[in-house]
Amino acid sequence: MQTNIDAGRAEPQSRWALAIHGGAGTPRDLPQSERARRHEAMSGALAAGAAILEAQGGSLDAVQAAVRVLEDSGVLNAGRGAVLNHEGFAELDASLMDGNGRRVGAVAGLRHIANPIDLARRVMDDGRHVLLGAAGAEQFALEEGVALVPPSYFITGRRRRDLEAARAPAGTVGAVALDVHGHLAAGTSTGGLTNKHFGRIGDSPIIGAGTFAESGLCAVSATGDGEFFIRFTVASEVSARLRYRGSPLEVAAREVIAHLKTVGGSGGLIAVDAAGRIAMPYSSAVMPRGQVSAGQRPELSDI
Amino acid sequence: MQTNIDAGRAEPQSRWALAIHGGAGTPRDLPQSERARRHEAMSGALAAGAAILEAQGGSLDAVQAAVRVLEDSGVLNAGRGAVLNHEGFAELDASLMDGNGRRVGAVAGLRHIANPIDLARRVMDDGRHVLLGAAGAEQFALEEGVALVPPSYFITGRRRRDLEAARAPAGTVGAVALDVHGHLAAGTSTGGLTNKHFGRIGDSPIIGAGTFAESGLCAVSATGDGEFFIRFTVASEVSARLRYRGSPLEVAAREVIAHLKTVGGSGGLIAVDAAGRIAMPYSSAVMPRGQVSAGQRPELSDI
Repeated sequence: MQTNIDAGRAEPQSRWALAIHGGAGTPRDLPQSERARRHEAMSGALAAGAAILEAQGGSLDAVQAAVRVLEDSGVLNAGRGAVLNHEGFAELDASLMDGNGRRVGAVAGLRHIANPIDLARRVMDDGRHVLLGAAGAEQFALEEGVALVPPSYFITGRRRRDLEAARAPAGTVGAVALDVHGHLAAGTSTGGLTNKHFGRIGDSPIIGAGTFAESGLCAVSATGDGEFFIRFTVASEVSARLRYRGSPLEVAAREVIAHLKTVGGSGGLIAVDAAGRIAMPYSSAVMPRGQVSAGQRPELSDI
Repeated sequence: MQTNIDAGRAEPQSRWALAIHGGAGTPRDLPQSERARRHEAMSGALAAGAAILEAQGGSLDAVQAAVRVLEDSGVLNAGRGAVLNHEGFAELDASLMDGNGRRVGAVAGLRHIANPIDLARRVMDDGRHVLLGAAGAEQFALEEGVALVPPSYFITGRRRRDLEAARAPAGTVGAVALDVHGHLAAGTSTGGLTNKHFGRIGDSPIIGAGTFAESGLCAVSATGDGEFFIRFTVASEVSARLRYRGSPLEVAAREVIAHLKTVGGSGGLIAVDAAGRIAMPYSSAVMPRGQVSAGQRPELSDI
């Protein structure tokens, strides 16, 4: 399952690996209590994914579990913590990709789904379509027996203040994993841009832009100025550079983010390759992120 | 603007070139009157685009004009002729990409827009976002002064019969062009799958899947089993093979469609490169298509 990535690098060949992000953004003067909640969310996400991978579970399940913890935390821009659009309600997007067979599930424009990543998984498992949007996606949720939540579920005091100030995007969440079976998976979930136009779909539910996974190569989850990530097909571009150039993951990932910066797009991505190497480049001021691998302690940065 | 495409090939270097498709599909026993209408639509689309290109206009305008003619024809699965979803109404998707600067506009899940390609252009020109979906996209249309049409606009007798029989997909429409300034552009517009799940978004509005254009390389518009085209990022994969492998357009396009077939995905694409070469491979039984270049007569096939 390995590809022609520079074999001379020093990193250990991990049996499994997991990385997560909490969104590219600008540093904020967060109160200590908020910082502690964010730390708890990111730690919990790594722990949830690691438990699955350590038990020889699949990368797809690990990614979904990690993202679900981040969605439920309420302190990141996904799930409960989603920012509000110009009309004052949350619209959520998510996608999930299994590099093994390139199975895909994605949802966009959700208004009443607590865990978009779980609905993306149901779209994938259902298998008829890969991307469902807005009211039609929520009708699918009802058919699947998924309970809808009222819009007020997403309207926390903090998010309302965010909207009022029309502040910079608070990020997105995502996870990538390699399991002991050599399978790669990636997932991304977001509330999109604060104050965005009603109906705006960003890169998170777009395969090849915000999320991509390809057996034997890499899994990628991106965050940042979504419009740029769509225009430059960022997630699949990292994979193409591994496949066609033989670039090491770290080089490919860094080059793609650097190029995006030169054309005006800020953001970052997390990626893991078939050998368990992790790359997490970003051009934004900060990108909360974490990683854990077989036999290694979890690490968190920019919390 | 040229790339390292095999310079030994015999095709002339056209100053401009345009190709269109009317969707991958299965042969139908069409009445002669229907066939004549389809021929008229495809001829009209080539003429509309060629007039712009011949007058040294831009490839983006030519693509938009050609697609608009196909949308208005009522005999192809886009615009007026869009198929109906499981609930019995049309939901339309479209996207447009300018390879010069990678500008993008896309819309998905429209129910009341006669010309989705024109709304995609407005999204591109507005510049804030690149993809708008469902009711939010239609709110944007209203803000832009675009008149909405009632759902009945799309419900022709023929489409209703299609739905009742839940027949195979009738295709999609698209156009790609190179202009005399060396700029490449691509556009795709569709009603999606007959009997699809409400909310299903296919590959047509997804940059890198159904539509892609990259300066100096190629412009691509795809049609077929949309879920496969998303999973395998078909349109950007053709471009990646030109960029990283130096493959000639014809080889890259044929290989991508052939590979898709091996994993179970049927369909086709039209593409033009920076030298004006056109490739139109397909694995479906038929793909109505046409092409015209500077100094050449228009050609139509599979009508």
